[in-house]
Amino acid sequence: MKIIFLGTSGTVPTGQRNHSAIVLEYLDEYFLFDCGEGTQRQLRIAGVNPMKFDNIFITHLHADHILGLGGLIQSLDFMDRKRTLDIWGPKGMQRVIDQILNTGTFRLSNFDVKVHEIESGEILRGPRYKVSCVPTRHTTNSYGYCFEETSKRKFLKEKALQLGVPEGPLFSRLQKGKSVEVNKKVINPDDVLDKPIPGRKIVYTGDTIPCDQVVELAKNCDVLIHDSTFSHELVDKATDMGHSTTQQAAEVAKKANVKKLYLTHISQRYTEPKKLEREARKVFEHSRIAEDFMVVEIEKHW
Amino acid sequence: MKIIFLGTSGTVPTGQRNHSAIVLEYLDEYFLFDCGEGTQRQLRIAGVNPMKFDNIFITHLHADHILGLGGLIQSLDFMDRKRTLDIWGPKGMQRVIDQILNTGTFRLSNFDVKVHEIESGEILRGPRYKVSCVPTRHTTNSYGYCFEETSKRKFLKEKALQLGVPEGPLFSRLQKGKSVEVNKKVINPDDVLDKPIPGRKIVYTGDTIPCDQVVELAKNCDVLIHDSTFSHELVDKATDMGHSTTQQAAEVAKKANVKKLYLTHISQRYTEPKKLEREARKVFEHSRIAEDFMVVEIEKHW
Repeated sequence: MKIIFLGTSGTVPTGQRNHSAIVLEYLDEYFLFDCGEGTQRQLRIAGVNPMKFDNIFITHLHADHILGLGGLIQSLDFMDRKRTLDIWGPKGMQRVIDQILNTGTFRLSNFDVKVHEIESGEILRGPRYKVSCVPTRHTTNSYGYCFEETSKRKFLKEKALQLGVPEGPLFSRLQKGKSVEVNKKVINPDDVLDKPIPGRKIVYTGDTIPCDQVVELAKNCDVLIHDSTFSHELVDKATDMGHSTTQQAAEVAKKANVKKLYLTHISQRYTEPKKLEREARKVFEHSRIAEDFMVVEIEKHW
Repeated sequence: MKIIFLGTSGTVPTGQRNHSAIVLEYLDEYFLFDCGEGTQRQLRIAGVNPMKFDNIFITHLHADHILGLGGLIQSLDFMDRKRTLDIWGPKGMQRVIDQILNTGTFRLSNFDVKVHEIESGEILRGPRYKVSCVPTRHTTNSYGYCFEETSKRKFLKEKALQLGVPEGPLFSRLQKGKSVEVNKKVINPDDVLDKPIPGRKIVYTGDTIPCDQVVELAKNCDVLIHDSTFSHELVDKATDMGHSTTQQAAEVAKKANVKKLYLTHISQRYTEPKKLEREARKVFEHSRIAEDFMVVEIEKHW
C-alpha cells in the first residue's frame, strides 16, 4: 500500500506545491483523492498511468480540489479509455461533471463517467477493502474519506490439528469462514481462527476545521492526512476560512491515536515548512509536512 | 518586448511541457495567449504576477488551450482583483466562461470578466500597439493572433531647421503629426518626418494546418510562433488532426519572411526535440523549438 502526494498546496499553488491530489495504490488498484488543476501532469511526472484509476473521491467542490477533472477526463478519452470512471463527491458533484463535460468543445466519446453523490458511511467495498466517508466542517459541504483494508484472522493450524481436523480441504473451508464436521463434531471457524487483525487504514480530511467526526474516523489509523493550511498564530483566520492549523491537526492525530500524521494544504505563505513541522511535533511526534511527489509506503499488518 | 513560453506541449502534457500558454510583455502591459490547465502555476514559477494581465487571447476552445482559465480567474478574485479582465476568443467563448463560472462552488465577487467573440481583423488598439486576428485551419473554429507595435517616423531635425522651423514647441507639434506655420509658409509633418519604421510584430498561430492566412498575417514579423505538433514523417496524421509538422511550420516562416520561428505544441512522443529543430532548420535556418519558461527578448526597431 502506497500513498503518493501529487499536490499539497493551499488554494493558490506555488512553484513547489500543486493543488490538492493524492494517489493511493493498493494491490493493483489506484484511487485518486481530490483532483486539483494540473493533476494529470503531476501524474505524468510521478509516473502513474492515469488509465489505472477507476475511482476518484472528491472531498468538496471548491475549485482547487476539482479543476483537474476536466483535463484528466479528456486525456483518458484521448487515450481511448473504455472502462467507466466512478467519481464520488458531495451533493452537486453531478452538476460539476455536467458543467465540465459542457465546457468548450469537450469530447467524451469512449467511456462513461458515473457520479455518486455521497452522504455518510460506507460507500464502496472491494474484495479486500472498503471506503467510507464522514461530513467534515468546511465553508461548503465537505467530506473526509477512510480507506480501510479488510481485517484478517490468522488460521491456528496446531489448534485445528488438536481438534482432529485433517490437513487438506477442510483447513481451506475453515479459513474461508465455513464450519466443518469431523467425527460427527462440528468445528466452527471461531474455534481455529485467531482474533481479527485490523487491516491498514488511511484517512484524508480534505479541507476542515478540527472536528470530532475526523477523530472518530481516524481512530488508530496508519496514516492521517489532515488539512494544515496555517500555523497556529493564524488560528482565527483558519477557523474563519474553514481550515485547521498545524497544531490543531496534530491534536486530532493525538486524540485519534494515529500512527503517522501528514500535513497538507499548506498556504503559499509558508516557504519554510519545517517550522510548521516543528509546531506539529510539539503536540504529536509522528508528524510530517507532505511535499509534492512524496511517497509513503504503509507496511502490512500481517 | 519579451515573450515567455509557459506551456509548449501538445494535447497531453509531459514532465517538461505544460499545456499551451504564452506571455507577451510590452512596456508595462502583459498579454496572455491561450491558457491551458496549470497556467496559473506556470506564471508563479516564471515569476509573472497574474494580476498584471488585462487581456487574454484564446486561439480556440479545445480543452488544452482553455482549462487554465477557471483557476486563473478564481485566483485573481482571491487576490482581490477589481479591474475588469478582457477575454478574447472565437464564437462560443462566452458560453465557456459562463460554464467555468458555474462549475462547482465558484466565487467571482470582486471583478468582471468581459468576453469578446472575435471574427477577423483588428480587435484591440492600445496607445502604442494593435492586436489583430485571422481565422486559421484547425478541427474547430480557430484564430491566429498578431501583436504589432505602432510604426514610428524619425524627426529630421536638420531638415526642419533648413525649412526655418525654430527649435522648441513647433518641433514638438510637427513630431505629433500636426502642421505648423513659419514665416507664412505651412510646414507639414511629411516635410520633416522620415519614412515610417514598422514596429515589432509577433504572430501566434494556435493549432492549425499551414495556411495562407498565417503567411499573410506573419509577413516580415519578428517572431512567428507556429503549431509544430509532429515531425514531417507524420504529415498525414498532422493534416487529419488539424496540425502542422515542423517542416510545414518552417515553410510558412520562409514564405512570410519572418525573422525568427518558434515551434510549439510539441507532441508528447518527441522526447528529443532537437531532431525536430534540425528538420525545421533544413527549410528555415532561424527556427527554434520552444521550451517551457524560455524567454525571448525582441530588440527595438528604433
